[in-house]
Amino acid sequence: MDIIQFVEQSIGQWRSQRSAHHLAFSHFEAVQSIIDIDMLSSDNPAVVELCQAYNVDPDLIASPFQMKWAGQSDWDEDNPEVKGSTILVPVPDPVIPNRGKLLRDQGYAETIAAAGDYHFLDDGTFVLITAYDNAAAEERIWFANPNLRFRVSLIKTSAGSGVVTASFSSEIRSSLNN
Amino acid sequence: MDIIQFVEQSIGQWRSQRSAHHLAFSHFEAVQSIIDIDMLSSDNPAVVELCQAYNVDPDLIASPFQMKWAGQSDWDEDNPEVKGSTILVPVPDPVIPNRGKLLRDQGYAETIAAAGDYHFLDDGTFVLITAYDNAAAEERIWFANPNLRFRVSLIKTSAGSGVVTASFSSEIRSSLNN
Repeated sequence: MDIIQFVEQSIGQWRSQRSAHHLAFSHFEAVQSIIDIDMLSSDNPAVVELCQAYNVDPDLIASPFQMKWAGQSDWDEDNPEVKGSTILVPVPDPVIPNRGKLLRDQGYAETIAAAGDYHFLDDGTFVLITAYDNAAAEERIWFANPNLRFRVSLIKTSAGSGVVTASFSSEIRSSLNN
Repeated sequence: MDIIQFVEQSIGQWRSQRSAHHLAFSHFEAVQSIIDIDMLSSDNPAVVELCQAYNVDPDLIASPFQMKWAGQSDWDEDNPEVKGSTILVPVPDPVIPNRGKLLRDQGYAETIAAAGDYHFLDDGTFVLITAYDNAAAEERIWFANPNLRFRVSLIKTSAGSGVVTASFSSEIRSSLNN
């Protein structure tokens, strides 16, 4: 598995079922959402801008894409609609295979631009580690079959060993977004 | 990571928060339980009996252990208490490192004895695949730190590609069961 195959397999509309475990309180949160993942061209203005912000040569990037989500949480009944969109730009390591950086214009844990480090495990699992000022995020995504993928996301303290929230998503592809 | 280290790290009492996703119905189930994992000696009668049932030479086994769980599900209000216990006997492959069989006297998916195949990924994740008559189970377990581990369990159709239920557990160690 490399980042180009991984992005190709991810394109489409996904129906997501997500459970978050807030570990300190043993609290469960359930979220249902629709996620759209679409390819972007390398000369898309937002992609070019993100490359410039991180001082990355646009010739080094591969398979930039956009992710949009709209969901409903059972956590906060007053504001149950969770919506967002982010642009993601992989920058494969020119030397080490199956590793690289992932730029994005907005993170999950904090709503600021962030660059994470990704690599693939020997079974094809994608692992992304992103350090923020006050937290770190670890995400692993793997495919059970072409239309079903799983995602485990951890929000950690910035020191890295304490996990604040662990969440698990089952994502079923409902269309290919042609 | 090998199976001896993995079992050593797993010994103790764990407070588990588990979310199950019943994929066909987008249904969420939440389970809270206490899991006790204790070492057994290789000459424990139940261990010897399990080796005999599978025709395994007791000299080939490593770190047999017992797992007990008691939990509460929000799924069935009439019968919310889930309790059980199983004996597990690893049989490392004598040739290929980090692989082997795991015998147990009772499975999760069906209440019969079962032998699964395990291996470790390059980041230390334990992966167990068990084939039953009418289903297959895949389990992956990894440690975020010595007192926190995660477990993803899939129940698949026997053909293997369809996933019926996906569940995610966050397990926090509350004591070492000395």
